[in-house]
Amino acid sequence: MSENYINLCHQQNKIFRLNHLREICFWDQATNMPSKSNKSRGEALAELESIIHEININPNTKEWIKNAETENLNIIQKSNLREIKRNWLRRHYLPVSLVKNILIARSNCELNWRKQRENNDWKGFLKNFREVVKYSKEKANILSDVLCLTPYESLMDGYEQGLKEKKVDELFNDIQLWLPDLINKALLKQQSQEIIVPKGPFPINLQKELCCKVMELFGFDFNRGRLDTSIHPFCGGVPDDVRITTRFNESKFLPPLFGTIHETGHARYEQNLPEKYYGQLIGEARSMSIHESQSLFFEMQLGCHPKFIECLSPLITEKFGKQKSLSSKNLYKLITKVSPGFIRVDADEVTYPAHIIVRYEIEKKLINNQIKVDEVPELWDEKMKNLLDVDTKGNFKNGVLQDIHWPEGLFGYFPCYTLGAIYAAQWFHIISDEVDDIDQLISDKKLEPIFNWLKNNIWKKASLFSTTELVNQATNDEGLNTKYYKMHLEKRYLN
Amino acid sequence: MSENYINLCHQQNKIFRLNHLREICFWDQATNMPSKSNKSRGEALAELESIIHEININPNTKEWIKNAETENLNIIQKSNLREIKRNWLRRHYLPVSLVKNILIARSNCELNWRKQRENNDWKGFLKNFREVVKYSKEKANILSDVLCLTPYESLMDGYEQGLKEKKVDELFNDIQLWLPDLINKALLKQQSQEIIVPKGPFPINLQKELCCKVMELFGFDFNRGRLDTSIHPFCGGVPDDVRITTRFNESKFLPPLFGTIHETGHARYEQNLPEKYYGQLIGEARSMSIHESQSLFFEMQLGCHPKFIECLSPLITEKFGKQKSLSSKNLYKLITKVSPGFIRVDADEVTYPAHIIVRYEIEKKLINNQIKVDEVPELWDEKMKNLLDVDTKGNFKNGVLQDIHWPEGLFGYFPCYTLGAIYAAQWFHIISDEVDDIDQLISDKKLEPIFNWLKNNIWKKASLFSTTELVNQATNDEGLNTKYYKMHLEKRYLN
Repeated sequence: MSENYINLCHQQNKIFRLNHLREICFWDQATNMPSKSNKSRGEALAELESIIHEININPNTKEWIKNAETENLNIIQKSNLREIKRNWLRRHYLPVSLVKNILIARSNCELNWRKQRENNDWKGFLKNFREVVKYSKEKANILSDVLCLTPYESLMDGYEQGLKEKKVDELFNDIQLWLPDLINKALLKQQSQEIIVPKGPFPINLQKELCCKVMELFGFDFNRGRLDTSIHPFCGGVPDDVRITTRFNESKFLPPLFGTIHETGHARYEQNLPEKYYGQLIGEARSMSIHESQSLFFEMQLGCHPKFIECLSPLITEKFGKQKSLSSKNLYKLITKVSPGFIRVDADEVTYPAHIIVRYEIEKKLINNQIKVDEVPELWDEKMKNLLDVDTKGNFKNGVLQDIHWPEGLFGYFPCYTLGAIYAAQWFHIISDEVDDIDQLISDKKLEPIFNWLKNNIWKKASLFSTTELVNQATNDEGLNTKYYKMHLEKRYLN
Repeated sequence: MSENYINLCHQQNKIFRLNHLREICFWDQATNMPSKSNKSRGEALAELESIIHEININPNTKEWIKNAETENLNIIQKSNLREIKRNWLRRHYLPVSLVKNILIARSNCELNWRKQRENNDWKGFLKNFREVVKYSKEKANILSDVLCLTPYESLMDGYEQGLKEKKVDELFNDIQLWLPDLINKALLKQQSQEIIVPKGPFPINLQKELCCKVMELFGFDFNRGRLDTSIHPFCGGVPDDVRITTRFNESKFLPPLFGTIHETGHARYEQNLPEKYYGQLIGEARSMSIHESQSLFFEMQLGCHPKFIECLSPLITEKFGKQKSLSSKNLYKLITKVSPGFIRVDADEVTYPAHIIVRYEIEKKLINNQIKVDEVPELWDEKMKNLLDVDTKGNFKNGVLQDIHWPEGLFGYFPCYTLGAIYAAQWFHIISDEVDDIDQLISDKKLEPIFNWLKNNIWKKASLFSTTELVNQATNDEGLNTKYYKMHLEKRYLN
């Protein structure tokens, strides 16, 4: 009956299981692995990667897809087939040699980047980065033909299926219209504000207890996941075993705590994907923008909500003892402090999108062959000056070299962060309309009605629908709209 | 030139890399994995297992082996080819359906065993155990024909290549001649001895620090390995990333400490395998007997050595404060206390071999079709009575159901423990002859000359030679001899 479709499902399930092992080994590499085990771990993971690639592009797949399209499938199966085909299209036309070249170029560039960044060495970096860009463009050009997208879109498509430059341009242009003014007003408003800096040390074990307590509040299932520490915080693992990490610092407990809340958002999405579709592409999280919308919803909409800070303050003083600085009022000031700076990951909620816009505009031109690699720093300086009024000239370390994304060849990912922030504000707005009194719910730490909305509208729908369909369903056909994001920022920073 | 041999090496390397990931995921399962992730982890590991099996028995292998045997190989390559062929022979003739049936029967039996053991439920256990025995015998019969061994030997061969029943019978018969008498004499000697039991609690974090300190003393390379905790202590991972575990208990610090020393012996063998043969079978540890000889050398010969206990005592009091019970004299009495009991893993050094002999004699007859599964408990009772004078009738929980080996179908493994103990005593004897004053070296914590002997005679030889060749080279052609083991026990327990 649907033999070809079933074959594809079996194959997908096999890949899902191998991904499970890869995810756990990646997590282990970041959290536990001793220093000198890196080489053999890298080789082992590359071997698994190549086995997964071989399974994906095995000669049967094309035939099975072609035949499955004529089989009598129900609507769920059709959705799954659509995802399988899309995934296959993104792999099948890439020569194995190119896949290998990208891996080597990335690994080489990323490895050297760590030192080059420290040494502010753009020239040294450029040598390896040219290779990464070269092969990424090669890949983008091939996929561009296959998928009928621009080269840059074909890379974005790997993180957010079908996302067009026109759409991102529209959103980001709109933000650029009002953001600089909003930043200035917020700065002016905060100018005279007095903030007390909390006095450490804040023992790591107590910080971890606090994080776990807050994760529990946010519904993290510790029977199907863990919190650990790593240099770069992330959310990994599989739906049944979600591994999130944070990075502690004895003198500051807020960044690890809010980092944990952020990752908890990713984690809850994964932990609440529909079990019956585990192992199939329709059972996976929809996209990276939607994923970021969950983490940013948890971090920015819930975690930084003034009513939640009121809940947080006693939990914090319970761990670290009383200090004036730990009053909810002062904590809220600390968390919402606006301060334009060099570094994206240290940026506040208001200036963050500016960092994304700078990167988006540069990488779009780079992959679409409109600028050359060595023009990147100049453009960077210009855009940072315009958007954030900071001077980055010659400061490659805290400029163009700061992120791991470019050395890793992850072009097309950056827009997802700000798309996620816009979505998150819109979800919050809709939920506020649907529940009785959202401030009261947060005050009472009764977050279930809020999570139920996310569960019903995002989590349990996994990849059954396209992002556009998913968003239309969730927004009563309004679609993504920056106005809720703007309203959110104005309410929090200008009122 | 040696194209076929090279193909085999590539294939072996691929398997080595996949084993790496499997080992890390097994370790994670035992140390970190949350409770509800077991099912999906099990499925993922089974998928990898089947991929490894497919690679091993892929149709090219037979051809490559046949052709490689006519290629112009050097002595190292020939050794490697011998190992590859042996490994292939042990897999190729097993029907895939049988491999699957064994896995299912084991997993089912082991899963239920945990509760059945608690409930002393031999009858319930028997139902699943019959399946494990049935399929294990099927496998043993096939391998028996292929390898020209008895069925039981063909299973032992999986842990100790080429080990014959005749050899084990000889060794164990010899031990049975003098062991009961030695046990009685030791008991008599210790009868009037006063032992002070250390008073806890001994905080886990301090116990872990102590273990790490002792691991350092024993040369463990923390840049290529870790110590963690798990319910069943083990040594896993790969040579470049050795993961050992122990199990802490606030009220007793000696079992976790000596467990750690034991695993450190396994770990140093792995960490010192010759790097240039990584990924090939000749680069792997020789056998399980030789592996146990390293762990038991570390634990029994070095760790329990009276001079080492003198070193250990101040390290212990440094962590836990002074107590009369922590004097080296009292610690030594605690560690060498002989006490015939039910449980193998709790047994002292002197009664331990009796537990092994009981199991060996029963499983040998079971696999060789000389007894039926339901006769096992009666035989168990009889042998435990004869060898250790303990009454196990009706006490299945602390009798025949105590070990994980049988529910897991690991028939043929048990003899390796006692072979390892015999080897360890012989290594110690030889080293004592070769170095100036071994007691003084241990007293001074100058263990390098001792480790150097192990490195040169065992570790760096990996699987270049057969066990018999390796042992002959190390013993100046004397071969394995129980007399050093007997001398060691007499010296420690009767003098």
